[in-house]
Amino acid sequence: MSSEGKIFVISGPSGVGKSTVAGEILKKVDNVYLSVSATTRPMRDGEKEGINYFFKTKEEFQEMINSNQFLEWAEFVGNFYGSPKFAINNYLSCGKDVILEIEVQGAKQIKQKCPDAVLIFLTPPSFEVLEERLIKRKTESIDKVKIRLNKAKEEMNETKLFHHLVVNDELTNAVDNVISIIRTERCRINNVKQ
Amino acid sequence: MSSEGKIFVISGPSGVGKSTVAGEILKKVDNVYLSVSATTRPMRDGEKEGINYFFKTKEEFQEMINSNQFLEWAEFVGNFYGSPKFAINNYLSCGKDVILEIEVQGAKQIKQKCPDAVLIFLTPPSFEVLEERLIKRKTESIDKVKIRLNKAKEEMNETKLFHHLVVNDELTNAVDNVISIIRTERCRINNVKQ
Repeated sequence: MSSEGKIFVISGPSGVGKSTVAGEILKKVDNVYLSVSATTRPMRDGEKEGINYFFKTKEEFQEMINSNQFLEWAEFVGNFYGSPKFAINNYLSCGKDVILEIEVQGAKQIKQKCPDAVLIFLTPPSFEVLEERLIKRKTESIDKVKIRLNKAKEEMNETKLFHHLVVNDELTNAVDNVISIIRTERCRINNVKQ
Repeated sequence: MSSEGKIFVISGPSGVGKSTVAGEILKKVDNVYLSVSATTRPMRDGEKEGINYFFKTKEEFQEMINSNQFLEWAEFVGNFYGSPKFAINNYLSCGKDVILEIEVQGAKQIKQKCPDAVLIFLTPPSFEVLEERLIKRKTESIDKVKIRLNKAKEEMNETKLFHHLVVNDELTNAVDNVISIIRTERCRINNVKQ
């Protein structure tokens, strides 16, 4: 039987809390690692190179695309985001699970390329709550927030691509549901080492 | 989208701890009910009619088979066991999940009849542990225990019929894994009420 790790995609609209949920999972679940994405978006206060993202210029990012270094990449509200293959494949081949915290376009690519990946859509309890969170985050101008909100409306129609829908109403509840999904996959007969 | 409940089958060899695990699940998870089986086996100390089983004579059981009252039934080491349809269908149609704590032969029937059912095989950490538990249980003669152990060896080769394998090494761990499986099913996109 396979002893490879598994990819868990945590996706959903901007502001829904993907990073927070992923961070809690890393603290609470053994043998799961976060794939650090590359991005061309500017670094936000408190973010660190190689921890939150690998921050790249557009030229560097394009070079990574050209040399086929990404498992998935997408343009999202004017910036590029991508998941470098190297670390992901390393973890998987050692039997570790990997979380990809990515946008919906990226999740679509993972679904095509990695049919065993488990796709989780994190959704806000309501669109109004999402709006409030994005405005409070104060990381972008109101114009950019509006673009993210319009994008979120489109994305929330794409839940059917995903295997699981987790409502981020209360963080603990959402985290427990994602942990349950990981535990369940580890009990799945075709994943269990025998 | 469907708002029906789901069947969770907890199966595995005699003495593995199916009843104990199922009992803990009922205490800890909302909206899940246990299907009480009918059986022709004698009542054990501490067991109660309608709580642990519906205790039936062979004639009564045969009459229930003839009138198509069982979702599944099987003969197991000289006694009959069956899951009456009536209560199960009632729970499912109200959106409640139902646990069937049944033998492997019954689980096979459920897999055929209810393709949406989630099948969990509870396994002991080792065959020796199972042997020890069955002997300690003191509910049967050593001869009967031997028959159960031989049956267990056969059953432990049938795990591939199941979706999930949960090792009952420590009760809390096994219970948490089964709870995770139930939570995960409740987050599955085609189960979520939208």
